[in-house]
Amino acid sequence: MKALVYNGPGQKNLEEHPKPTVQMPTDAIVKITKTTICGTDLHILKGDVATCKPGTVLGHEGVGVVDSVGPGVTVFKPGDRVLISCITACGRCDYCRKGMYSHCTTGGWILGNRIDGTQAEFVRIPYADTSLYPIPQDADEEALVMLSDILPTGFECGVLNGKVQPGSTVAIVGSGPIGLAALLTAQLYSPSEIIMIDLDDNRLAVGKRFGATATINSTDGKAAEKVMKLTAGRGVDTAIEAVGIPATFELCTDIVAPGGTVANVGVHGVKADLHLETLWSHNITITTRLVDTVSTPMLLKTVQSKRINARQLITHHFKLSEILKAYDTFGKAADTKALKVIIEA
Amino acid sequence: MKALVYNGPGQKNLEEHPKPTVQMPTDAIVKITKTTICGTDLHILKGDVATCKPGTVLGHEGVGVVDSVGPGVTVFKPGDRVLISCITACGRCDYCRKGMYSHCTTGGWILGNRIDGTQAEFVRIPYADTSLYPIPQDADEEALVMLSDILPTGFECGVLNGKVQPGSTVAIVGSGPIGLAALLTAQLYSPSEIIMIDLDDNRLAVGKRFGATATINSTDGKAAEKVMKLTAGRGVDTAIEAVGIPATFELCTDIVAPGGTVANVGVHGVKADLHLETLWSHNITITTRLVDTVSTPMLLKTVQSKRINARQLITHHFKLSEILKAYDTFGKAADTKALKVIIEA
Amino acid sequence: MKALVYNGPGQKNLEEHPKPTVQMPTDAIVKITKTTICGTDLHILKGDVATCKPGTVLGHEGVGVVDSVGPGVTVFKPGDRVLISCITACGRCDYCRKGMYSHCTTGGWILGNRIDGTQAEFVRIPYADTSLYPIPQDADEEALVMLSDILPTGFECGVLNGKVQPGSTVAIVGSGPIGLAALLTAQLYSPSEIIMIDLDDNRLAVGKRFGATATINSTDGKAAEKVMKLTAGRGVDTAIEAVGIPATFELCTDIVAPGGTVANVGVHGVKADLHLETLWSHNITITTRLVDTVSTPMLLKTVQSKRINARQLITHHFKLSEILKAYDTFGKAADTKALKVIIEA
Amino acid sequence: MKALVYNGPGQKNLEEHPKPTVQMPTDAIVKITKTTICGTDLHILKGDVATCKPGTVLGHEGVGVVDSVGPGVTVFKPGDRVLISCITACGRCDYCRKGMYSHCTTGGWILGNRIDGTQAEFVRIPYADTSLYPIPQDADEEALVMLSDILPTGFECGVLNGKVQPGSTVAIVGSGPIGLAALLTAQLYSPSEIIMIDLDDNRLAVGKRFGATATINSTDGKAAEKVMKLTAGRGVDTAIEAVGIPATFELCTDIVAPGGTVANVGVHGVKADLHLETLWSHNITITTRLVDTVSTPMLLKTVQSKRINARQLITHHFKLSEILKAYDTFGKAADTKALKVIIEA
Repeated sequence: MKALVYNGPGQKNLEEHPKPTVQMPTDAIVKITKTTICGTDLHILKGDVATCKPGTVLGHEGVGVVDSVGPGVTVFKPGDRVLISCITACGRCDYCRKGMYSHCTTGGWILGNRIDGTQAEFVRIPYADTSLYPIPQDADEEALVMLSDILPTGFECGVLNGKVQPGSTVAIVGSGPIGLAALLTAQLYSPSEIIMIDLDDNRLAVGKRFGATATINSTDGKAAEKVMKLTAGRGVDTAIEAVGIPATFELCTDIVAPGGTVANVGVHGVKADLHLETLWSHNITITTRLVDTVSTPMLLKTVQSKRINARQLITHHFKLSEILKAYDTFGKAADTKALKVIIEA
Repeated sequence: MKALVYNGPGQKNLEEHPKPTVQMPTDAIVKITKTTICGTDLHILKGDVATCKPGTVLGHEGVGVVDSVGPGVTVFKPGDRVLISCITACGRCDYCRKGMYSHCTTGGWILGNRIDGTQAEFVRIPYADTSLYPIPQDADEEALVMLSDILPTGFECGVLNGKVQPGSTVAIVGSGPIGLAALLTAQLYSPSEIIMIDLDDNRLAVGKRFGATATINSTDGKAAEKVMKLTAGRGVDTAIEAVGIPATFELCTDIVAPGGTVANVGVHGVKADLHLETLWSHNITITTRLVDTVSTPMLLKTVQSKRINARQLITHHFKLSEILKAYDTFGKAADTKALKVIIEA
Repeated sequence: MKALVYNGPGQKNLEEHPKPTVQMPTDAIVKITKTTICGTDLHILKGDVATCKPGTVLGHEGVGVVDSVGPGVTVFKPGDRVLISCITACGRCDYCRKGMYSHCTTGGWILGNRIDGTQAEFVRIPYADTSLYPIPQDADEEALVMLSDILPTGFECGVLNGKVQPGSTVAIVGSGPIGLAALLTAQLYSPSEIIMIDLDDNRLAVGKRFGATATINSTDGKAAEKVMKLTAGRGVDTAIEAVGIPATFELCTDIVAPGGTVANVGVHGVKADLHLETLWSHNITITTRLVDTVSTPMLLKTVQSKRINARQLITHHFKLSEILKAYDTFGKAADTKALKVIIEA
Repeated sequence: MKALVYNGPGQKNLEEHPKPTVQMPTDAIVKITKTTICGTDLHILKGDVATCKPGTVLGHEGVGVVDSVGPGVTVFKPGDRVLISCITACGRCDYCRKGMYSHCTTGGWILGNRIDGTQAEFVRIPYADTSLYPIPQDADEEALVMLSDILPTGFECGVLNGKVQPGSTVAIVGSGPIGLAALLTAQLYSPSEIIMIDLDDNRLAVGKRFGATATINSTDGKAAEKVMKLTAGRGVDTAIEAVGIPATFELCTDIVAPGGTVANVGVHGVKADLHLETLWSHNITITTRLVDTVSTPMLLKTVQSKRINARQLITHHFKLSEILKAYDTFGKAADTKALKVIIEA
């Protein structure tokens, strides 16, 4: 089959790759119909993700059709249309029992990382019963690709961890795809104010269109000051970090109100300063989280009932044969204004 | 009246001071019967607390008898025996309405800081109705002095914020009075393991006596390693920071398990490193809190029903006339083995 | 001053009544600008509320301007525009400390019940600091009258107690003003389905207009069956009782899914059957609640930020001099299609 | 093999029964080492449980050793010592994903009810990976039998649902095995008062020994009055119903304080009266629950760390060959003072 293979830092190739087969009784093989590219795939290509070895098929998002299943699979059968979760959950270990699938002792984020992923014609899904979701009859499959990773990530790591509530004030630092996913899902809880902060006016304009009540271009280094002005000097109830660098994290701890929460979503490469000399008495909460995708069934319902318009995140379409061009478009988002790109397999 | 007055860094004196009078309709004047000394009083004396001006009577803990009240006080009347909260709560502002008295817009920690405190014969208590608690008939008044600050601080900032639960694993870094207060109150939730960590074997021995299931002397720099060994490589569900320096905070983030919480109790003077490059995906929570004393009524019940033996924290007794000696004893805790000292006024 | 006085069952009169004066240091006198009529006022007039004695001024809702305050009032001063809560909260007792103002030991629902109410030119508000809310500069005062009682009641007793969540399924039994208030505020949490159930097609049409995703006319006694059909045999996550009779309560327990909640809002006059022989194993929760109005500040923000359109509930306007006509219109809601009527004082 | 078979109302027999075999890939066969009898087994024998057909092996509790497993079982292997949960959980359906195993769409309470149970030499456990728990090396196996059903039932349905908290006041109506299980596990949260209510002085004496702070013999019909006296007229924060008849349920709703919870544990055969005419405004919560055994891992830790002495519940020991005598002893608990009986297979 055709697959996009990581061949070491800076090297990827659309090449022939052996079609996967059932290895464990709990496996399913899924024929991919649509997949997409994540910022994390770019991280891997830079060589930043040590667990991903050369020779691995990339991708951890997508929808498809069940091709075959192992004898231990009881929920799915060949022909079923399925949504693939970026997180593999055994459903049995202590972490899975608590809904913390991200730390599943034999799963977690392994697709397109420790094992072959979804940017291919077929993919092997371990623990299929608890790592796939049935696609409802009338669903918009393309919109559902947004449920593999980006919407649950924005929602769980940003909105749920950030305890967004009706009437509350939210700032989202970073108006890229993940920040926008947090923005879309934050509105499920009807906060009064959602302030998007970014360096790029185009992305802020998208934020405004997606429901932000205010936007701040932080190029001048005065974002904290401006947030304080917008909140009568109080700060925000929830500050969502959706970039992954020390400056944006520290901005979040600067603008969070007493009693508020900093919810980290960004993938960080270096440490940040934590100003405990002021924060110790501010009654704040800081959270980190690798997405668990435990909210996927719920998000599916909100997408189905049109409480979230997931399609808004999709800006470009490609065939699997054009996936290198898709990477190019996604990688140059500042120019192409790409958010999420759909790749049809 | 006699009062212990802060006269600038390094200078304190037991001196004649004007007896306080009702200034606002919501004030009460309380005749102190018993008070105590807090680590924060030592911070003030070092000159570390800018809000406390020379000439201020120190102290924010104690029990006493209501002497007089303003016309807006409806709950208390002269003669009532009362417990003084270290936190003054107006009961009306947005923060008080949410139970976050520490950030009361006109109160918070002001006693023995912004206004005269309790190490005196009398003290003025603003917003008396919501800052004092009635003392039950049969209560042990001396034990209740532990409810002014140290027990709610250990409980709210450490145990509640740390989400200690039946069966969970807890590490408390710092076995001084505040760490021990966390230890005593953590047991209200029946965790399976409570590991005390300190540099001082004597303090660890006290921790063991107060209910720790394991102790670690961290002098050798191997505390993290030892905690991992005790928890089968998993780390602790709750790590309580009860010292207030970067090293102990960073130890907490090193030993917290995925899904766990670092609850900061310590008063910090400098920033700490936050290793987001590893923590971003660990699904952890970090909390900070200045005590709200919102749990005082509940803790009072647990002390009354003997679920907590608060008296264990009291090691020494003095008269108000001996308060300089009391400070000396409390300040040299390593030698005197002082935890909390009672001062009778 | 002019006031609408309850003169015993079936008897009300707009008559001269002494203007209230400050009786306690914590009182404020408020000049009413707008008030409204509640279903509970009709209950009183039927003689169903024993605590309300003849001679009492009716009404527990409204907005106005502070006329005078007692010496213990610190938050408000004459001239302040204020929203009156239907619940009087001392802010000091155990219940108030927990945010359960409805059970305030010296307050609770007393306005227009145990003491004179708001359907008058002036009203005395006990514990003004914790029973009034400041009206923001740019607020629509008329919309805010909906925050005195009906919106917090629908929200706290129905939506919060019912744990409405994004993606969840809600049924509201009773599409009168209180059911509609639940409907409006339920949408703050973006449930997937909201099914309104009533006997009156007009009210159901209003429900549809206010955001219901489905409506059921229960005249044929098949409401439970229809709900099951709409929910694939599963039942609803939240069933909100907004009528107050056994049949509607029992309908709620019939349609609630395993793990779901029946949130009672209705005022009941007689007992209902609780079918524990089936419910014991259904993992359900049933809640009752007299509104606490603890959510008023939050609801104010959602109204101000246009997340809720409170004005939709207002169907008629009257002058205080026309209040008997207003009662007539409100009392014949089936004919007049009245929801809430505004009375200008 | 030998098994205790239900042969229709009033008829049970210890007889030869085919040894179970793996039927589904997710099955395990467990050799029973110890089992016990539950009140529900007596219900079945009375003919009250329609789902249990004649010919079924009774019993849903026990510990044992894995004998064989299907190909889909990944957690357990032959020779593993295991604790059997009374609830079978597929781990995949919507209910299991939420931790509501009691309503698993293909599991739930099926052992010794819809399929053969544990009062036998061997038992087939469907969905073994999520329905069995590994037994720690040093565990007291006999104590662990209490974790199959009775302790999680008392804890989840009574203590967790009842929101028992430090300092709170609890009444447990019914001091039989299940009420005592609630009593033991309630103490994990250090409530201030636990009042046991029963008709039998012997059972109340056991309650006292197990940690009750007060006991009430309700024979005189004055239990509600006495509870009010013990709680200064306020009622209890948590009322746990552990009998299963209307009178005891109604007692619970009579004694619950405003803001409190009635947690039903009892299995009811008929409806009860719910006095909404008074309860509608009492801000109470009523919960029902079939145990989910989701707390089993946590309870295992509390038993292992000696926070709970589970062995106290065991009063008698029998061999499997004596199981009819065991039923006799358990069935005549008033005379034999039996709580739980251990049967060694």
